[in-house]
Amino acid sequence: MVTTNLDTPSTFNLDTYLKERCVQVEAALEASLPVVYPEQIYEAMRYSLMAGGKRLRPILCLATCELLGAETSTAMPTACALEMVHTMSLIHDDLPAMDNDDYRRGQLTNHKVYGEDVAVLAGDALLTYAFEYIATQTKGAAAERILEVVARLGKAVGAAGLVGGQIVDLASEGTIVDEKTLTFIHMHKTAALLEVSVTSGALLAGATPSTVDQLSRYAQRIGLAFQIVDDILDITSTPEELGKSVGKDVAAQKATYPSLWGLEESKRRAEQLIAEAIAELSDFDERARPLIEIAQFITARTH
Amino acid sequence: MVTTNLDTPSTFNLDTYLKERCVQVEAALEASLPVVYPEQIYEAMRYSLMAGGKRLRPILCLATCELLGAETSTAMPTACALEMVHTMSLIHDDLPAMDNDDYRRGQLTNHKVYGEDVAVLAGDALLTYAFEYIATQTKGAAAERILEVVARLGKAVGAAGLVGGQIVDLASEGTIVDEKTLTFIHMHKTAALLEVSVTSGALLAGATPSTVDQLSRYAQRIGLAFQIVDDILDITSTPEELGKSVGKDVAAQKATYPSLWGLEESKRRAEQLIAEAIAELSDFDERARPLIEIAQFITARTH
Repeated sequence: MVTTNLDTPSTFNLDTYLKERCVQVEAALEASLPVVYPEQIYEAMRYSLMAGGKRLRPILCLATCELLGAETSTAMPTACALEMVHTMSLIHDDLPAMDNDDYRRGQLTNHKVYGEDVAVLAGDALLTYAFEYIATQTKGAAAERILEVVARLGKAVGAAGLVGGQIVDLASEGTIVDEKTLTFIHMHKTAALLEVSVTSGALLAGATPSTVDQLSRYAQRIGLAFQIVDDILDITSTPEELGKSVGKDVAAQKATYPSLWGLEESKRRAEQLIAEAIAELSDFDERARPLIEIAQFITARTH
Repeated sequence: MVTTNLDTPSTFNLDTYLKERCVQVEAALEASLPVVYPEQIYEAMRYSLMAGGKRLRPILCLATCELLGAETSTAMPTACALEMVHTMSLIHDDLPAMDNDDYRRGQLTNHKVYGEDVAVLAGDALLTYAFEYIATQTKGAAAERILEVVARLGKAVGAAGLVGGQIVDLASEGTIVDEKTLTFIHMHKTAALLEVSVTSGALLAGATPSTVDQLSRYAQRIGLAFQIVDDILDITSTPEELGKSVGKDVAAQKATYPSLWGLEESKRRAEQLIAEAIAELSDFDERARPLIEIAQFITARTH
């Protein structure tokens, strides 16, 4: 095992790192989807794809690829694809038949601008383009590795992943949800896509199966912690801090970790998960700094 | 060029061939999607996937693979994926925000049984599973070939394919559509998926680029002919013959080939396209019989 120097001072600045990566990802997304005939569908896809956000999934993919010593350019098409898939899930989630939201990130939701029919199709087109983009644009990795990324992304998004989590979430509305069900929902709705963000970066960098598994455990833990913190912020934040309405979960009588465990225990468990996530990175040297600080950022964030 | 013996009598029987292939495809689809927790999403996916139909896309894929001397088992996962994608497009098409249909193939549409929210998600899950299934299940082909199938399927389904055709179709409602636009709609809504059904079978069988192109032209022509015949049948058939309501296009003032060209000229052009499609197969021997007779079946069908 490599001796780590995680306790020594680092010149690494997470805020700068995230901003720089975000600019790179935005530029790659911008280039990924030119507007051609029929313009309306490309405009609808781009409206939501280019609507901002932390770009956490692409950044996790690039950071993992870099951690393992590979060029981030190898992972960039997959990083873009992860954001396309995430955007699809938001567009379809916001539909009247689902969460029926009029605003997201301070702008009108896709179906409020383009109509429900176009919003359904824009989601479908982003989802399918994600797979096409990985298959056609990835350079510098073996075809077998790229196929495994396609397979894992498919699993993470479909009935065994994100969609499965959404289905259990929908079925749980208005019922008393136990911890096992709540964890299933979040491991699938949130953690599955974060996990494949990390594992795809590892696969494209040529990681061994055991390293992929190790990084997968890191990602699962930050995914669950991310959701616990989201639940906590819904209770403890002001709308100004959060940039969106708060107290929605309580109002909707929605099961959350604080409702199961209380606030203090929820915070303790989120911190515990982050500690476990960081422990999975102990084999790596200073190059693991971005993934470590991203994990810490998840519990420290106030929005 | 190989001398063909297309004019000699054949023992090939299309009806038997399609029935046998349909049974094989149904069995493969049945095995492709077991029901596990959360059961509801798998049941919703299977409800539409196993709802019958001619299974024309999978059969074209298998027939093309076989034509080029490869095992049909190599193409079977892709054949299943083509049907998953086709089913997704039907589920989303039937939604209230789209065509708002209550029945398809004599049974309630997906959202009438499971609700709109689940129907959106069932479509998303089938679409993503299609790519996952190709990537994980295809045996006997090089990884590069499988990636090309993923790429071409993505293109055929997304904004540059099926979705793009749907968008132009939606935008054309209530307007006067010219021949160029009508052909764009059908080349993308219908022909693109038929084309990739054929080219994916060819790619998995190891076809050269020129053979893939040749078979692609065959498929584009039968795709367009298929749509022209659909338009003709909407005018000339009784509901009993067609198994669905007729005269819908005229009632909806929808542009069709007969409305642009008249009935006789539409029939002549469909036959012309089929003749051109069959001419693309002239390099092949008796093994091309299934693709030839499928092409002829398209103009001869009454439902």
